[in-house]
Amino acid sequence: MNRLNIAVIGTGRMGSVHCRNLVRSIPEANLVAVCDIRLEVAQRVAAELGIGRVVQDYRELLADPDIPAVLIATSTDTHWFIVRDAALAGKHIFCEKPLALDLASIDVALAAVEQAGVKLQVGFNRRFDPAFRRVRDLVASGAIGRPCILHIVSRDPEPPSVEYAKASGGMYLDMTIHDFDMARFQVGEVEEVYALGSVLVAPWLAEAGDVDTDVVTLRFANGALGVIDNSRQAVYGYDQRLEVFCSAGTARAENEAVDTVIVGDRTGMHAALPPRFFMQRYPDTYVNEVREFIACIREDREPPVTGRDGRLSVVMGYAAWKSYQENRPVKLSEIWRET
Amino acid sequence: MNRLNIAVIGTGRMGSVHCRNLVRSIPEANLVAVCDIRLEVAQRVAAELGIGRVVQDYRELLADPDIPAVLIATSTDTHWFIVRDAALAGKHIFCEKPLALDLASIDVALAAVEQAGVKLQVGFNRRFDPAFRRVRDLVASGAIGRPCILHIVSRDPEPPSVEYAKASGGMYLDMTIHDFDMARFQVGEVEEVYALGSVLVAPWLAEAGDVDTDVVTLRFANGALGVIDNSRQAVYGYDQRLEVFCSAGTARAENEAVDTVIVGDRTGMHAALPPRFFMQRYPDTYVNEVREFIACIREDREPPVTGRDGRLSVVMGYAAWKSYQENRPVKLSEIWRET
Amino acid sequence: MNRLNIAVIGTGRMGSVHCRNLVRSIPEANLVAVCDIRLEVAQRVAAELGIGRVVQDYRELLADPDIPAVLIATSTDTHWFIVRDAALAGKHIFCEKPLALDLASIDVALAAVEQAGVKLQVGFNRRFDPAFRRVRDLVASGAIGRPCILHIVSRDPEPPSVEYAKASGGMYLDMTIHDFDMARFQVGEVEEVYALGSVLVAPWLAEAGDVDTDVVTLRFANGALGVIDNSRQAVYGYDQRLEVFCSAGTARAENEAVDTVIVGDRTGMHAALPPRFFMQRYPDTYVNEVREFIACIREDREPPVTGRDGRLSVVMGYAAWKSYQENRPVKLSEIWRET
Amino acid sequence: MNRLNIAVIGTGRMGSVHCRNLVRSIPEANLVAVCDIRLEVAQRVAAELGIGRVVQDYRELLADPDIPAVLIATSTDTHWFIVRDAALAGKHIFCEKPLALDLASIDVALAAVEQAGVKLQVGFNRRFDPAFRRVRDLVASGAIGRPCILHIVSRDPEPPSVEYAKASGGMYLDMTIHDFDMARFQVGEVEEVYALGSVLVAPWLAEAGDVDTDVVTLRFANGALGVIDNSRQAVYGYDQRLEVFCSAGTARAENEAVDTVIVGDRTGMHAALPPRFFMQRYPDTYVNEVREFIACIREDREPPVTGRDGRLSVVMGYAAWKSYQENRPVKLSEIWRET
Repeated sequence: MNRLNIAVIGTGRMGSVHCRNLVRSIPEANLVAVCDIRLEVAQRVAAELGIGRVVQDYRELLADPDIPAVLIATSTDTHWFIVRDAALAGKHIFCEKPLALDLASIDVALAAVEQAGVKLQVGFNRRFDPAFRRVRDLVASGAIGRPCILHIVSRDPEPPSVEYAKASGGMYLDMTIHDFDMARFQVGEVEEVYALGSVLVAPWLAEAGDVDTDVVTLRFANGALGVIDNSRQAVYGYDQRLEVFCSAGTARAENEAVDTVIVGDRTGMHAALPPRFFMQRYPDTYVNEVREFIACIREDREPPVTGRDGRLSVVMGYAAWKSYQENRPVKLSEIWRET
Repeated sequence: MNRLNIAVIGTGRMGSVHCRNLVRSIPEANLVAVCDIRLEVAQRVAAELGIGRVVQDYRELLADPDIPAVLIATSTDTHWFIVRDAALAGKHIFCEKPLALDLASIDVALAAVEQAGVKLQVGFNRRFDPAFRRVRDLVASGAIGRPCILHIVSRDPEPPSVEYAKASGGMYLDMTIHDFDMARFQVGEVEEVYALGSVLVAPWLAEAGDVDTDVVTLRFANGALGVIDNSRQAVYGYDQRLEVFCSAGTARAENEAVDTVIVGDRTGMHAALPPRFFMQRYPDTYVNEVREFIACIREDREPPVTGRDGRLSVVMGYAAWKSYQENRPVKLSEIWRET
Repeated sequence: MNRLNIAVIGTGRMGSVHCRNLVRSIPEANLVAVCDIRLEVAQRVAAELGIGRVVQDYRELLADPDIPAVLIATSTDTHWFIVRDAALAGKHIFCEKPLALDLASIDVALAAVEQAGVKLQVGFNRRFDPAFRRVRDLVASGAIGRPCILHIVSRDPEPPSVEYAKASGGMYLDMTIHDFDMARFQVGEVEEVYALGSVLVAPWLAEAGDVDTDVVTLRFANGALGVIDNSRQAVYGYDQRLEVFCSAGTARAENEAVDTVIVGDRTGMHAALPPRFFMQRYPDTYVNEVREFIACIREDREPPVTGRDGRLSVVMGYAAWKSYQENRPVKLSEIWRET
Repeated sequence: MNRLNIAVIGTGRMGSVHCRNLVRSIPEANLVAVCDIRLEVAQRVAAELGIGRVVQDYRELLADPDIPAVLIATSTDTHWFIVRDAALAGKHIFCEKPLALDLASIDVALAAVEQAGVKLQVGFNRRFDPAFRRVRDLVASGAIGRPCILHIVSRDPEPPSVEYAKASGGMYLDMTIHDFDMARFQVGEVEEVYALGSVLVAPWLAEAGDVDTDVVTLRFANGALGVIDNSRQAVYGYDQRLEVFCSAGTARAENEAVDTVIVGDRTGMHAALPPRFFMQRYPDTYVNEVREFIACIREDREPPVTGRDGRLSVVMGYAAWKSYQENRPVKLSEIWRET
C-alpha cells in the first residue's frame, strides 16, 4: 500500500506528539516535512525522527504538489488562516482544536474548506478513546433504549496560570469545550445550556474573570438532559468519566488507574491513582484520530469530526459564558443560527 | 435502663416497618400502642408483633400520659395536623417526610412544636446511611478541603402510576426532595436551584404535568456547586450514589450490589445488580434514625433532622417546580424567606 | 401456619445468636425454652427475649413431647452425646459444627440419629451465604462448564490464644474445616489433601504444635483441583473469598466491604475495609440455615448439611494434620473409609 | 548520549517485537543488524524498520567488533549454544527464556558467560510489569510486614496444539515457569514444590503426557507458603493476577480489562473482558526489560534477571514434573544442588 505523504505544521507540544505517532505508529503515513515558525524547534523534532525536510514558512509546504495533506498544530490564534490557506492550496487538513476563538474566523476557514472541497478533521481526540467510543456505539445501537441523562466528569489535576487562562478563552472555551464535543458525540445536538461557575481553588483566576469549577447543564434536541462537571484541581489526578443513562440500561466509562494494585492494611484498601496527565490518559486517541483522517482521505469519506463539529463546540463555549454571566439558560441559537 | 414508651400512628407500609424495627431492633424503645384509621390494619401489625394496645383514633394516644413520644407514618396530607395535635399534647414527635405539601400547613405544625418545646424529627432516613454519613463526616472534618462539586444520582427502578404522581406533589416534591435534604446534609445551605425535566420513559406522567427524568443544579451558600440527577426508571435497579468533590480530594459513595459475585464468560465479566427496592437498600437507616430520635429525647438534644430541615426540603421542591416551569434559576428566597 | 416449637441448648456466644434469630427473624419457629449448664446465662437470654422456660439440664427438654426439635450450641466436646440423647428422644437436631473432634464420638452420634430416623443438620452456615450459594448454583447448573480449579481464601483478623488453639483441635480442624465443607459444597467429593503450614505471625501457637498460616491443596473425585489458603491474621479484616474456575467461565465471590465509600486524595483511592468479625460478615447465614432446617422438618426433606457432611469435614481436618506432619499428600480413605 | 549498537538474532514472533521496540521505543539503542536462519524473515523485519544489515548466520554478527550486545530470540533449543558463542565473542547477551530445556546445556552456557565476564539477562518480562513490580517493591520494603502467602493466578485463553506441547517441555516448563520466576521475584528462594495436574479441557494433551490445569504449592526458604494456579483455557481471556499476603497487610495485582466500561441492564452490571493475548497484557514489559539490560551494560551493573534466575526456573519446572509424576513434594535440591 502507498503511504500518504503528510506534513506537520507546528511542532510544539502537541505537534511533536503527532510527529512521533506518524513515524512510529502510523505506517500508512509518510511524514515528509515538518514546519515551525521557530525553526530550531522543528529541526529538533526532525533530527529525533529522521525527517528529511524542515521549513519555517508553512506556505512552502502548501506549494508542494507531493504533499496532499497537512496536520496543523500551531498556536490557536493561527489555526484559522493556515486552514484557509491550506484549503486554498487543495490540501486535506487535520487541525487541532479549537479552530479559532472567534466565530468569524472559523467561518472564513470553513468557507474556504467548503469551496475547495478538501477534507477537514478537527482534533477532538477524546472521541477516539476506546471506552468512550464503546459507550457511544452501544447507545447509538439502541440496545439500552433512548438516552435520558448524560453525565460527564472532567477534572484536571492542576489549575493553569492566569496568563494561560487569559489566552485560552477561559474555562468554558478551553476545558469544557472537550466535554461539549463529547456530549454531542454521545447523545446528539444540544439546544440550550446553563452554566454555573465558581472560583474555589485558584483565586488568581478571578482577576482574569475566569472560573475554576463549573457545572453546565445541557438540553438535547431529543429530550435528553445532560450535565458536565469540571474542575481545574483534582488533587488525585486526571478524572475523566462519563455515563449515558438510558431508558433500558446505562453505560459508564469509569476513570482509569495507573495500575491494578490494591493494598490492604489496617487503614483501608488502597487502589492506584488515575493517570496524572492527559498524554498518559489518552495516548492512543492521538494515533487513532490521525489514522482515521488518513483513511477518510483514502476512501473519500467525511471525517468523523467535521468543521461544523469544531464550530459548534465554540458556539457552546460562548453560550456557556453568556449563561454564566447572565445567570440564565442560553439557547445555542442565540449565539449562532446555522445557515 | 428504662425503655421509652412510644406509639406508632399509621401502620401502613412505612409504619409497619417502624413497628417491626421498634420491637425487634430497638431495645431502648417500648412500643406500647399502634393506631390506624383502618383499624384492622393496625390490628394485623399488633398481632404479628404482640403489641397490647390498638386504637383507631390517634387522639386517644395523645391523651395518654404514659406515652411521651409518637411516630407518625400516616398519609402525607394528615402529617401537619397530627404533628400539631401531638405537640399540643406535649409529645415528642418523629414524623415521616414530607411534613406537608404546602408551606402554610408546615408552618402551623412547626409553630405548635416550637411553642410546646417538644422534639421533632423528620424522617429523612438517608442521612443515616453509613456510607453517606461517612462521606459527610469526612467532608465536614475538612480533611479533603472545601466542597467544590456535589453530585447525587438517585434513580428509582420503576415509574409510578399517574394517580400516585398526582397525589405525591410530582417528581421534585416526591423524589428529588430526598436529594435536596441530602445536598444540605452533605454541603450546607442552598441559595438557588435550576431544574430541567423531561418525560422520556413514562408518557402517562405528562398528563399529570409531571416529569420522569430531571437534572437539578444547586448553588450553595459556600460557593460550592451541585447537581442532582433523577430518573423514575433505572431498569437495572435502585441507583443511589453521590460524590462530594473537594479541593483536596474526593469522597464517593458508590451504589450497592446485592452480592459480590463476579462471573466471567466469553461475553464479559458480570457483576450483580443493585438492590431493587428502597427497603433492601436502606434497611438500617430506618432503625438508626429512630434510635437517634430516642437518644435525643433521653439526652435532651436537638434531633439531627429538624422541622426546619423538613420545611427547607419542601421549599426546594417548590423552587425546582418554579424553575422548571419558568426555565430559569430560582432563589429559595423567592419561595420562602426565613423569619 | 403452625409455628414449630424448638428449644436451644447452650446459650453462649453462638447459642444466643440463634435465640435472637429464632425470636426476631424466624416467624415459623416458636422458641419455647432455653437451656444452659450455666443457668444464669440462659436466664439472661430468656429475659432479653421473653422466653418462658429456662432449664439447666437439657434432658428435661428432651423429655418434653411438645418440643419436636432442638438446636445444640453447647461446647464442642458435648455435642456428640447431646446429639445422641436428642436422637434417642426422637428430636430433630440442629447442631453447631464440629460434631466432635474425634471420629468415634461422631460415629456414636450418627448411629443414634440414623436409628431414630430424625433429621440432623450441622451448622456449616457459610453454605447459606447468598454469594457463595449463587456461585455454587451457577457451577452446578453447568452453565460455565466443568469445575477445574477451586480457590478459597479464608483469613481471620486476629490469632487466637494458645488455650483456644489447644482446645480447638488446631488450625485445620478449627478454621480450615469451614473451607473443607465449602470445597465439597462447591465442587464435590475430595479424595486427597496436601497441607502446608507455617508459624509466621503468632509464635505462641508453635508451642501448641499449631500453625497460623496454611495452604491446603485438594484433589477432587471429578478431576478438579483445589486450594485453600488460611491465615490467623489479616490485619485489614476478615477475608472471605472464593473462585470456582470452570472450563467455560469463572465465578468469584469477592470479599465484602463495610461500605461503598471511595476516598481519593494525593496518595491513592481508598476503599473501606472488610467487616472485622464473622457476625458482621455472615449475619444472614445463621437465620437462613435454621429456616432451612425447619423447612426440612416440615416437608420431610433431608437437611442440606448432613451428619455425613459433618463427619467428612472432620476427616479432612485429620487428613490435613497427617499431611502436614508427614509432608505428603494424604487420601481421605487413609483416615476413614465409608462403610 | 551515544546509542548502544545491538543486533537481534532470531526475528520470529518475539524477535520482531524486540526489533520494533528497539527502533521505536528505545532511543538509547541502535539496532544495527538482524539475523534469522530464515533469511527472508529477517529481511522482512529489516525492510519494515529500515535496518541496514541482515544476515543469516549469527556468527557473522559475533565477529563484528562494533556490536557489543546481542538479543537472542531464536527457537529455544538453540539458545544455549548461541549464548555460549556470544559470550565467547565477548558480547553482552539478552536471551529469551528458557535458556534451555535441559540443565546440562544451561550449565555450558552459563559457564561461558561467567568465564567471559559478559552481562547476561534472561527474558522474564513479567518482572517488568508495573503492577507486579509495585507489589514486589512494597513487599520488599517491609511496609506490610513479612510475606506469608503468595498466590499467583496465571491462565491462558486457549490451549496449545499437541505439537506445541511436546516441544515446549510441557505445562510446568512452558507456562508455570513464568510463575516460578515471579514467585522468586516476589518472595525469595523456594525450597520445595508440590504439583497437582489434571487434563480437564484439552484431552489431546493427555497423549503427550501433558496437563492443562495445575496447582503448584511452594515452600519458601523464609517460611512463607505459596500457590500457583494455571489453566490453558480461560475462556474470558488472559488471566494474570497475584497476591502477596503479609503479616501487616496484603498487596494484590488484579487482572486488567480492555477498557473501563460498565454496562448495566436488567441482567446485571457488565464489565469488559481482560486482554486476550499476552502482547496486549504485557506490551511495556518487553520495552522495559531491554532498556534495563542496556542500562546495566552502560552502568556496569548486574542485570536484574540473571543466568542463575534462568536456571532456577528450569530447576523448578523439573521439580514440578517430578512432583506431579511421583505425587509427593520435591525439594529443588533433588534436582540441582548449587555448587
